[in-house]
Amino acid sequence: MSETLLARRRESLSPSYRLFYDEPLRPVRGKGVWLYEEDGTACLDAYNNVVPAGHCHPRIVAAVAAQTAQLNTHTRYLHQTILDYAEALLATFPAALNRATFTCTGSEANDLAIRVARHVTGGTGIIVTENAYHGVTLATAEISPSLGAKMPLGAHVRTVPAPAEGMDFSAAVRAAIKDLQRHGIKPALLVVDTIFSSDGVFADPPGFLATAAEAIHEAGGLFLADEVQPGFGRTGSAMWGFARHELMPDMVSLGKPMGNGYPAAGLVAQSHVIDAFGQNIRYFNTFGGNPVAMAAALETLRVIQEEKLMENAATTGAYLMAGLKARHQVQAVRGDGLFIGAELADGALASRVVNHMRAHGVLISASGPAGNVLKIRPPLVFTPAHADILFSALDGALADG
Amino acid sequence: MSETLLARRRESLSPSYRLFYDEPLRPVRGKGVWLYEEDGTACLDAYNNVVPAGHCHPRIVAAVAAQTAQLNTHTRYLHQTILDYAEALLATFPAALNRATFTCTGSEANDLAIRVARHVTGGTGIIVTENAYHGVTLATAEISPSLGAKMPLGAHVRTVPAPAEGMDFSAAVRAAIKDLQRHGIKPALLVVDTIFSSDGVFADPPGFLATAAEAIHEAGGLFLADEVQPGFGRTGSAMWGFARHELMPDMVSLGKPMGNGYPAAGLVAQSHVIDAFGQNIRYFNTFGGNPVAMAAALETLRVIQEEKLMENAATTGAYLMAGLKARHQVQAVRGDGLFIGAELADGALASRVVNHMRAHGVLISASGPAGNVLKIRPPLVFTPAHADILFSALDGALADG
Repeated sequence: MSETLLARRRESLSPSYRLFYDEPLRPVRGKGVWLYEEDGTACLDAYNNVVPAGHCHPRIVAAVAAQTAQLNTHTRYLHQTILDYAEALLATFPAALNRATFTCTGSEANDLAIRVARHVTGGTGIIVTENAYHGVTLATAEISPSLGAKMPLGAHVRTVPAPAEGMDFSAAVRAAIKDLQRHGIKPALLVVDTIFSSDGVFADPPGFLATAAEAIHEAGGLFLADEVQPGFGRTGSAMWGFARHELMPDMVSLGKPMGNGYPAAGLVAQSHVIDAFGQNIRYFNTFGGNPVAMAAALETLRVIQEEKLMENAATTGAYLMAGLKARHQVQAVRGDGLFIGAELADGALASRVVNHMRAHGVLISASGPAGNVLKIRPPLVFTPAHADILFSALDGALADG
Repeated sequence: MSETLLARRRESLSPSYRLFYDEPLRPVRGKGVWLYEEDGTACLDAYNNVVPAGHCHPRIVAAVAAQTAQLNTHTRYLHQTILDYAEALLATFPAALNRATFTCTGSEANDLAIRVARHVTGGTGIIVTENAYHGVTLATAEISPSLGAKMPLGAHVRTVPAPAEGMDFSAAVRAAIKDLQRHGIKPALLVVDTIFSSDGVFADPPGFLATAAEAIHEAGGLFLADEVQPGFGRTGSAMWGFARHELMPDMVSLGKPMGNGYPAAGLVAQSHVIDAFGQNIRYFNTFGGNPVAMAAALETLRVIQEEKLMENAATTGAYLMAGLKARHQVQAVRGDGLFIGAELADGALASRVVNHMRAHGVLISASGPAGNVLKIRPPLVFTPAHADILFSALDGALADG
């Protein structure tokens, strides 16, 4: 069956599509942290960051079904749910971050942030980390070195090394600012994924981002916290990854987990930034902020809060990190909550481990520029009992080498 | 209630949001061609092109609910529905258009087309019409003059006049190509909405686009048919707007109506174009092509085909156009199927008519550079009886002047 599907993919889809795992997965059903293949094989999902409440959470399924049956229009009509959601969402941010714009994808949210930064600062220069990923639109792909050498970075883009512990991240940002200016390019934006996911997961020490944000502000640019991956409580210690760094972003982009699988994303910004843009430029996203997306997002946020998923991310995350640190083949463990990077000796070993674990029913992936960092970021309903299943599969894979 | 919602919008949403109508609509329920406000007031929807099968079509509602309850993952796993849909979709195109890539929005589809064109041609120059609209990402906003003077067009962008009857459109495209080359910019892409919606709706004479596509091909560029608005049978005469022009696009972008409201969009391309891109560049869109989007899109396509909505668009569209032509205040009627532009004397009159009709329960809008073209594009389940309701509201509005 998988062979047939593979052949059909080659015939009708773009070759831009890539599959996970040497032996691709073919799930037909999902429930909580489990994905099921057609023959009933269960796989423990320790990687899907799009379903914080778990696959097919009944409350969110019901919210999507009910609103789809009742009305699905757009933001050019008045609708109450977009406001209920915007207010509930903004309540999770510091008071200065007080305006929401809704898009369908994190790419669109980051792309909009670039448009806002260009409009507000009059500059075009953008600074990102060396293996950053911020999206698939042209403007976001141009600031995503992790897409590979064949996707050219923009001439207005500078990269800085990922913030490995001990390095002076803000000094690197200051050097990049200087280089932009030396080329006559006015700095517009510093953007970082606040957990540095594609760079290999860097969370510590808390606070290192604050001086980098200061640097871009001094140069007249804005700071965008890309929370598409770390946001909505995944890091356990706070709803938003930037919080650990005690700084105030000008804008925050949101995506993946927002609707527990329903396409929903957005940009939260300080009013003095977004108002300058919005008064001059209209922004209409056909599906962004539609009543069903907002119903899905509102129910997802309620489930995260009422089921205390952030708190669970902290507890289970600590258990996972301690267990990973106890494995002697694991050279370093970085992260926060349920966003964890575990460094192995090299990328080839990490690839074998990922595929061995998949063959034994546990789903994770690897990242970092050398591909040697196991990336573990399960649905936020993951428990220590699930972590034990993961450890058992990991030990089997490491023993198999 | 609307006042309260307006105040809440000002407090929590970006001012980029704009509402339709002097007296904003606040629908709470939708069914077929009808939207209902809280007090039960019914409004005839003659404008929503996102629900070709009508609001809350039971088959599509059921498909979304069922798949949401069963599984919602992504394109990095195998899933059958994306292939069932891709094959059904490609079967509606000429054989050469044989590869699909799925995104969430039409903006993302057009943006991807720009990335493909740059990669494949090595050029950056793009030609669009004077009042074109192609999306809200940075790269698509830069080719969307209809967003207004405060959104700068890219330095690599040239505009050509909208193809009013009698003008030589391909001559204008050739002049734009020459101007790009004179500035050292290699032409990459000619992109047009094949019904020229934001330019004021231009469909005739059939065939005028073919020589323009030839011109961009001769210059080494590609031709993108933007079918986000005219596509999926709306024009009545064919599933795709480009068909009336007897030409073969290199790429076709799809959006709005694809999932009958569920966020779904995509890019269909010739394999020799997209393969050159896809073998070098991976493209992963978190929500694009997910099982629920594909279930929604597949059921929407089936409903369009089984309920013969394209045929209905032709019949009802002809009835609407004849009725509009019979009104002496209507100076010209252009369009095809259920995509109709009706020209009034000026934008102020058109605005009064649109708002008067809204106050009397019929929803349309106005477009064109002068805002004087009534734009009528109802769900494809619109019947002549619905058209009579529209005529009655239109006559009232015109009499009121």
